Amino acid sequence: MKKPLILVTNDDGITAPGIRKLISIMNDFGEVVVVAPDGPQSGKGHAITIEDTIRCDKVTIDNGPQTEYSCSGTPVDCVKLALNKLLTRKPDLCVSGINHGSNSSINVIYSGTMSAAVEGALDSIPSIGFSLLDHSKEADFSEGEKYIRKIVSSVLESSLPEGVCINVNIPKSIAGIQIKGMKVCRQAKANWEEEFDERVDPKGRKYYWLTGKFVNYDKGEDTDERALENHYVSVVPVQYDVTAHHAISTINNIL
Amino acid sequence: MKKPLILVTNDDGITAPGIRKLISIMNDFGEVVVVAPDGPQSGKGHAITIEDTIRCDKVTIDNGPQTEYSCSGTPVDCVKLALNKLLTRKPDLCVSGINHGSNSSINVIYSGTMSAAVEGALDSIPSIGFSLLDHSKEADFSEGEKYIRKIVSSVLESSLPEGVCINVNIPKSIAGIQIKGMKVCRQAKANWEEEFDERVDPKGRKYYWLTGKFVNYDKGEDTDERALENHYVSVVPVQYDVTAHHAISTINNIL
Repeated sequence: MKKPLILVTNDDGITAPGIRKLISIMNDFGEVVVVAPDGPQSGKGHAITIEDTIRCDKVTIDNGPQTEYSCSGTPVDCVKLALNKLLTRKPDLCVSGINHGSNSSINVIYSGTMSAAVEGALDSIPSIGFSLLDHSKEADFSEGEKYIRKIVSSVLESSLPEGVCINVNIPKSIAGIQIKGMKVCRQAKANWEEEFDERVDPKGRKYYWLTGKFVNYDKGEDTDERALENHYVSVVPVQYDVTAHHAISTINNIL
Repeated sequence: MKKPLILVTNDDGITAPGIRKLISIMNDFGEVVVVAPDGPQSGKGHAITIEDTIRCDKVTIDNGPQTEYSCSGTPVDCVKLALNKLLTRKPDLCVSGINHGSNSSINVIYSGTMSAAVEGALDSIPSIGFSLLDHSKEADFSEGEKYIRKIVSSVLESSLPEGVCINVNIPKSIAGIQIKGMKVCRQAKANWEEEFDERVDPKGRKYYWLTGKFVNYDKGEDTDERALENHYVSVVPVQYDVTAHHAISTINNIL
């Protein structure tokens, strides 16, 4: 039997420890092709590059068996380039991450990591985004590894429903507390309260840094935030049909 | 009674004819503040600027009564800056557009125009994205104007359901064919078939331009694509909860 073809990408850039870990795990499951950004692309959402050119070069980063391309574009550009230019056959799986930091709840719509997975799903490829709730470059990915292996193995075996990818978040490693298991959840209703850090440049002109505080408004028991708080891996099925079907009749009445 | 406060943004940039038209219409409905990108930000989806600084300067573009800010960031950055830094009270309405080109069906997830409206909805502001199916800089926005006025007037009067904004697409003006009315629809299942235009730079290194062909796979009668084909204005309610609720039990079985 042919080995499964696995496309790997992320939004932290091709040299980030999270994607290096994911590549090493994926090498046990199939033939791996990496197409990932040449630098940080966090918070790029579903952005694509249409006003500018895209560079994409074959690179060697470690001595693993995978093939790798480093790309100047966004995570979604990477998936599009892989599927339409670089790969010779359709991949059996697309995995994105492991993201350094949470992509739970509302973060899913800002996340380049998750948008890459959504783009895979758009082309009917079983797709998974993995994130660890730890921003540190020295983050410990080891505890989540067995869950990543279990999820990848299940998805390669059973696929995923059409039009759906999954958003997997892994709790931060805390000494003395073990991950309790996995929970399939819905996206919590949460938001960012932004504060713009206003500064003045050496020429006297104002500029801003975007900063913010995450606020979870959702008291539900079935959310990703709740699962993560209770030290479970959260798994949220994510779709690209953003129609608010339940609101169609209300909008009909309003207009 | 206080005049409604209306935030206006777009993704084609603050000088694009589409936003200038929208500003002139909105001036009839309330006090208008424009916070829009200083250049093209099409296809930026829900991207935010976190690895770089943001510039935002007060500008005067025409002699209208509106206040305007030109911003170096993405459409979503513009909304965040407006709500958290520039406006002194919460706006009663957020409108984005008029986009030069369609944001129907799958385009909604790539669109900076629509992501700005989604960001407004995230802050519980009634929000609308307007797009015209004509990319031309000389596009004729006049036929859609009465629908824009009707929709804005209805939304100011009745608001929108919590967590929902609306995606309004207006057919291209064709001599001899009048717009037939408005239809509230769901997002059609469609996609882009990409082709990367591969070129070689003067130094002999490869680069790519993203190009593609839009393909509608959806034969449904209730889609935005169908409404637009039949020369109706399409209105799709859009939500930021991207959980595929219908897939939760299937995923539970798979994992």
